[in-house]
Amino acid sequence: MELQFLGTGSGVPSKERNVSAIALKLLQEINSIWLFDCGEATQHQILHTSIKPRKINKIFITHLHGDHIFGLPGLLSSRSFQGGSDLLTIYGPKGIKSYIETCLHVSGTHLTYPISIVELQEGKLFSDDNFTVYCKLLEHGLPSYGFRIVEHDRAGQLLVDKLKADGIQPGPIYQQIKENDLVVTKDGLEIFQKNYIGPKKRGRVISILGDTRATERNKSFVENSDVLIHEATFDNEKENLAREYYHSTTTQAALLAKNSFAKELILTHLSSRFQDDDIPRLLQEAQEIFPNTEIAHDFYQKSLPQKE
Amino acid sequence: MELQFLGTGSGVPSKERNVSAIALKLLQEINSIWLFDCGEATQHQILHTSIKPRKINKIFITHLHGDHIFGLPGLLSSRSFQGGSDLLTIYGPKGIKSYIETCLHVSGTHLTYPISIVELQEGKLFSDDNFTVYCKLLEHGLPSYGFRIVEHDRAGQLLVDKLKADGIQPGPIYQQIKENDLVVTKDGLEIFQKNYIGPKKRGRVISILGDTRATERNKSFVENSDVLIHEATFDNEKENLAREYYHSTTTQAALLAKNSFAKELILTHLSSRFQDDDIPRLLQEAQEIFPNTEIAHDFYQKSLPQKE
Ligand SMILES: [Zn+2]
Ligand SMILES: [Zn+2]
Repeated sequence: MELQFLGTGSGVPSKERNVSAIALKLLQEINSIWLFDCGEATQHQILHTSIKPRKINKIFITHLHGDHIFGLPGLLSSRSFQGGSDLLTIYGPKGIKSYIETCLHVSGTHLTYPISIVELQEGKLFSDDNFTVYCKLLEHGLPSYGFRIVEHDRAGQLLVDKLKADGIQPGPIYQQIKENDLVVTKDGLEIFQKNYIGPKKRGRVISILGDTRATERNKSFVENSDVLIHEATFDNEKENLAREYYHSTTTQAALLAKNSFAKELILTHLSSRFQDDDIPRLLQEAQEIFPNTEIAHDFYQKSLPQKE
Repeated sequence: MELQFLGTGSGVPSKERNVSAIALKLLQEINSIWLFDCGEATQHQILHTSIKPRKINKIFITHLHGDHIFGLPGLLSSRSFQGGSDLLTIYGPKGIKSYIETCLHVSGTHLTYPISIVELQEGKLFSDDNFTVYCKLLEHGLPSYGFRIVEHDRAGQLLVDKLKADGIQPGPIYQQIKENDLVVTKDGLEIFQKNYIGPKKRGRVISILGDTRATERNKSFVENSDVLIHEATFDNEKENLAREYYHSTTTQAALLAKNSFAKELILTHLSSRFQDDDIPRLLQEAQEIFPNTEIAHDFYQKSLPQKE
């Protein structure tokens, strides 16, 4: 599982930072990639990575501001061009469907793969064998959502060496041990699962919030995230401006990470007014509150190792 | 007057060639820039040029395929962000209006400047003090237009030195000479304009065609162009494919240039299947028919000097 930031700016692209998009690479887990937001030229950014558009099978749109969606029609077309044939599901606020349909219709674009467009409602978005994803309305003037991606815990591995040492040979019984707390053999041998199973693998929790004002209401939604990805459009001293424009500051994002017991915080969606020189100062503002903070840059990749 | 190619690929962007956009810089003539097509990431390309989005006051869309329009909403937004306040007029095929309006509406984009959207009909598009622009339907499956930009001829300059030498001193009379074939002074002196005016400056003619199949019907529209800009999606041997997909080959574009008495031909809209290595061969195919051919690359700039 890796995160790769494809666009870490806000509002308009600059030479240094493109507009918003984040890839969550789940190649080892489910051989697919999820994309969060799709600002203009996201497909161009992808050309400079190892990401294959046909591997993207879910796109989550936090909100409909142009810097988060204007790359979507182009990416959909290119995925077609490059021979994608698997279903692509797009989640986004109400309006996403008419936006996509108008763009595809007007441009005469016929996709080579089926798409499903799901307009968001707060709560559980879906749950499958591996993940449950929740979404929540934030505060951004127009509907903007956060996503909480919860990987399911996985059972520990069967301790084959120990089983063999105790004289229990491979066979259908191994599956029975995996599935039952206690197995009694024909010979009356009692096998307790707990003696032959390694520790459970705890699932990871990733919270990716769309643009939002700082609000107490976001806290419980992101609680205990392994990684919290949060906007930081403004620096600490611009708290009033941030409030007025429904955005957050470095410090406000760090406070949320701290108060929600996040393990790591990654800041993104930086205003184009900031230069490279400003980054250390912005980082320091956040780290004073929440030390385990990073500021993303375009193409920044972050591994999220499995937890034990 | 300069042309600058911002995207010279076709269908999908590649690392080498972005999708279609051409800037016609009329800074000396009318202090503005016209844009022809606006594929995704045109605004990103512009970041690497001296073009200021607020100077763009006309955008001509040849046709509604995604590789020609998906950069439009982002460019309109950024022009706003960068403080544009002058009217922007967008010309495009029927459907352009609902596309732009949906994109702006869904994304909650409020522009800081007025826009006027004109849906194209064949014939004269407009005529102002400096230019007359015509458009014509080409053959591309869906409506695709070509534009013929005709700069008006300009009167020659007043030969001030000669006037003075002949004892005619500067004053309101100079303006009278400019405006009348013959001026008779109070003293009865007859001043013939033709003796005191330099040669007329012939206006330039630039033809920019959208995607099109080769057809005899395009010839009279582009006749006598100083520069003809034409697509060359396929190489000569792919004539059948070109026909099937409503595109042209290098050779077909060159034949049109030759038969319409163009002075120069610039090829663009190259298939992403071509590599840099293929360019000399493509160029040769065209030059065998029409020697004064060039193949554009992204950011290629071409001066169109004033004619005498
Ligand atoms: Zn944003
Ligand atoms: Zn095209």
